[in-house]
Amino acid sequence: MKPMDSEMLREQGHIMVDFIADYYKNLEDSPQDFPVLSQVQPGYLRDILPDSAPDHPEPLKELLHDVSKKIIPGLTHWQSPSYFAYYASSTSVAGFLGEMLNAGLSVVGFTWLTSPAATELEVIVLDWLAKLLQLPDHFLSTGRGGGVIQGTGCEAVLVVVLAARDRIMKKAGKNSLSQLVVYASDQTHSSFRKACLIGGIHEENIRLLKTDSSTNYGMPPKSLEEAISSDLAKGFIPFFICATVGTTSSAAVDPLVPLGKIAKSYGIWMHVDAAYAGNACICPEFRKHIDGVENADSFNINAHKWLFANQTCSPLWVKDRYSLIDALKTNPEYLEYKVSKRDEVVNYKDWQISLSRRFRSLKLWMVLRLYGAENLRNFIRDHVNLAKNFEDYVAQDAHFEVVTTRYFSLVCFRLAPVDGDEDKCNERNRELLATVNSTGKIFISHTALSGKFILRFAVGAPLTEEKHVTEAWRIIQKHATEFIHNKKK
Amino acid sequence: MKPMDSEMLREQGHIMVDFIADYYKNLEDSPQDFPVLSQVQPGYLRDILPDSAPDHPEPLKELLHDVSKKIIPGLTHWQSPSYFAYYASSTSVAGFLGEMLNAGLSVVGFTWLTSPAATELEVIVLDWLAKLLQLPDHFLSTGRGGGVIQGTGCEAVLVVVLAARDRIMKKAGKNSLSQLVVYASDQTHSSFRKACLIGGIHEENIRLLKTDSSTNYGMPPKSLEEAISSDLAKGFIPFFICATVGTTSSAAVDPLVPLGKIAKSYGIWMHVDAAYAGNACICPEFRKHIDGVENADSFNINAHKWLFANQTCSPLWVKDRYSLIDALKTNPEYLEYKVSKRDEVVNYKDWQISLSRRFRSLKLWMVLRLYGAENLRNFIRDHVNLAKNFEDYVAQDAHFEVVTTRYFSLVCFRLAPVDGDEDKCNERNRELLATVNSTGKIFISHTALSGKFILRFAVGAPLTEEKHVTEAWRIIQKHATEFIHNKKK
Repeated sequence: MKPMDSEMLREQGHIMVDFIADYYKNLEDSPQDFPVLSQVQPGYLRDILPDSAPDHPEPLKELLHDVSKKIIPGLTHWQSPSYFAYYASSTSVAGFLGEMLNAGLSVVGFTWLTSPAATELEVIVLDWLAKLLQLPDHFLSTGRGGGVIQGTGCEAVLVVVLAARDRIMKKAGKNSLSQLVVYASDQTHSSFRKACLIGGIHEENIRLLKTDSSTNYGMPPKSLEEAISSDLAKGFIPFFICATVGTTSSAAVDPLVPLGKIAKSYGIWMHVDAAYAGNACICPEFRKHIDGVENADSFNINAHKWLFANQTCSPLWVKDRYSLIDALKTNPEYLEYKVSKRDEVVNYKDWQISLSRRFRSLKLWMVLRLYGAENLRNFIRDHVNLAKNFEDYVAQDAHFEVVTTRYFSLVCFRLAPVDGDEDKCNERNRELLATVNSTGKIFISHTALSGKFILRFAVGAPLTEEKHVTEAWRIIQKHATEFIHNKKK
Repeated sequence: MKPMDSEMLREQGHIMVDFIADYYKNLEDSPQDFPVLSQVQPGYLRDILPDSAPDHPEPLKELLHDVSKKIIPGLTHWQSPSYFAYYASSTSVAGFLGEMLNAGLSVVGFTWLTSPAATELEVIVLDWLAKLLQLPDHFLSTGRGGGVIQGTGCEAVLVVVLAARDRIMKKAGKNSLSQLVVYASDQTHSSFRKACLIGGIHEENIRLLKTDSSTNYGMPPKSLEEAISSDLAKGFIPFFICATVGTTSSAAVDPLVPLGKIAKSYGIWMHVDAAYAGNACICPEFRKHIDGVENADSFNINAHKWLFANQTCSPLWVKDRYSLIDALKTNPEYLEYKVSKRDEVVNYKDWQISLSRRFRSLKLWMVLRLYGAENLRNFIRDHVNLAKNFEDYVAQDAHFEVVTTRYFSLVCFRLAPVDGDEDKCNERNRELLATVNSTGKIFISHTALSGKFILRFAVGAPLTEEKHVTEAWRIIQKHATEFIHNKKK
């Protein structure tokens, strides 16, 4: 037995392709066999797998049998057409093929030398994508800026917090860390706070500005301006603003134009986290939501969320790549080579946390080429239209209410309170969520807005069609009836 | 056109399998077509790709044609049988199939709920691997410890530095950061220094203890003890030791037994970075190199390096998982669920930097099952034996010298100095490296040890056989002759 044999790869690769194609076929045709939210109990797998690795090889057939019987029941099917939870993490045929090809070639492009194509394709494809998003020229690789594919939005915000931190500490001194202050709204993704804590920012210096329904949960520029003034007066050093376009909770949009002006006037780094909604900005009609990005220092989308790129593909653009490199560079002798100097080539190891990296641009390139920009825009529009349908269903049912303005493919809604009893309303919605998810027929998720328990219906999975949305609403309505008519609870 | 269609996935997936199988076949059969180190010039790809993404779809056939003609010439072929640079990042048929299946299922197991199987398989498989490595019981999931698959060793060392930092700062106070001190040898991977800087540790508090050939570049315990004593006397707070088993430069081994005793006596977190060599410790004859790991707080190997797991698969075990969770947890409302509480289930989002995560245990499980432990041990032994052959070739040629003791599959060697002229010797080795790599027939790399320019020959690619090692030596010897006989330079 050898670790690599091209004919064995061929034979077993074909078997695996059929296994995966069958999975998608069955996911569509036999949804009853695939509860969208897994219904297993904690510890289920320990009971049915051996305690230790086998000494001797087991056949692929047996392994795939175990995948079907033991693993798949424990999956929550993110690619199911009836997946409406969180935000989608969508693959596509092209994204899947891109991952396959990356896994097949298995190169590690940490420096330019270790696979020039991996670096150069990433530079080029991120310029392509920046153009589709109509990002300002300073984010292109032709100037001081440029793009890099991080694994996740969490990594993206971490590296720019570090870049901004090190930039300010160069001026403010190495003991200034405890004075550094950051700003975001209370709707900002939890990874921002985590990134700050990782970077040693004091927890009490993380200002999460209050939002409410009056701005549809967008960050109020006035609050930001006041917070900065107040902090400056107290001797703090404001250095970072994280604005969000499409928050995780409710797809709220922070107003980039006024926020960017404030950031600019105080010389503060502004990062735009557009992990989900940024993808929609390849459509001209949604582009307005990132107006003002020209005043940002960095901008991020998760192409694995809604650009069909398969997992961990999070493009980040920065205005000044040297700020990233200054914070993250390493120069061990064993990686030096003739053209490794600063400007001649890109060495992406200095733009990210890890040394090692995958050839992620391959799948983004394949998605862009195999679908073309127009189809990608239409995929997104289809999802938005499906969400609009769902929003209409909700609006037409007096027992329910839509709770925030829908900008993209997320609908925030709930069973409306009866006689103004918010506590009971929260309880009923919590119960409705548990009930519909326990059917296994659909998976939706929840959030809290202004203390209210809110249901989230997010369209974005690659197989979702109108019938799935209609059916989802039917299921929600049906189970809601139990609460409405029986006045259960 | 739709983003997902099971029959299109099937059709195009089969085409891609053949493309990848042909790549491996050709890599073996027609090495002249695949220079191991890519010979392209910086900017080559920009000249041959369009400036922007296409509006309309392009056929897969055309894309694969471009992969062959435009991308592959820009690859450095890490999976080539004649790849001997850095350390290998080896795939295998099983590792490749595992990546395919992960990309196909495309679930995101950030909490237990979002795909119980993804979390539970990871817990189980890391217990399996811990047993193969004979790790102490406290690293198993059954106690306070447990394993988690990070993307890279860089992420692994970062998360444990953060866990240890936050643990000590709970005691020492939130303004103690500037007093915190860390220790490692000057051979430690650059990611350790980077992790410390990310965490806000002051650069001047990173003690990289000097090593030399007298300990074969292992960290001298006496130096560590002295450094700690001296720092304590000055009011610093020692809190972290990074020990390495198999350094990147020369595969040096830090003596874990005495280092662990020191760490324990001072209550300092000791991390063991065994990214490369740790994999070999599944073989009883190499296990001795991690004797003493029972006093470590964390232990890491890169299964993507030498356990054939394909890219970004870096198991990390910790003695106290709560220290990790305390440093890295997030609790946004939208991710809460019924059994999300601390001990009932594992939520791996709190063990790592990112929220999102791949189903990486799948490929590790597949590698362990499709090969079995005995074959994996034999793959590693074969590589070590091939390195031993190469070492013998070097030792038998009076013009060359082996410069450090070989423990695993890395040989550090050089053209020996003539008349004690070290400068000229460095220059000749530098030139020899450039010359052999420019042939495209093999790829070897270099390092510096005690100021000397050293050549590295690392065996680990999945296709490498005896004939490739013999041929590599022939090429090196042939080109060396030019320097030896012509006294060139």
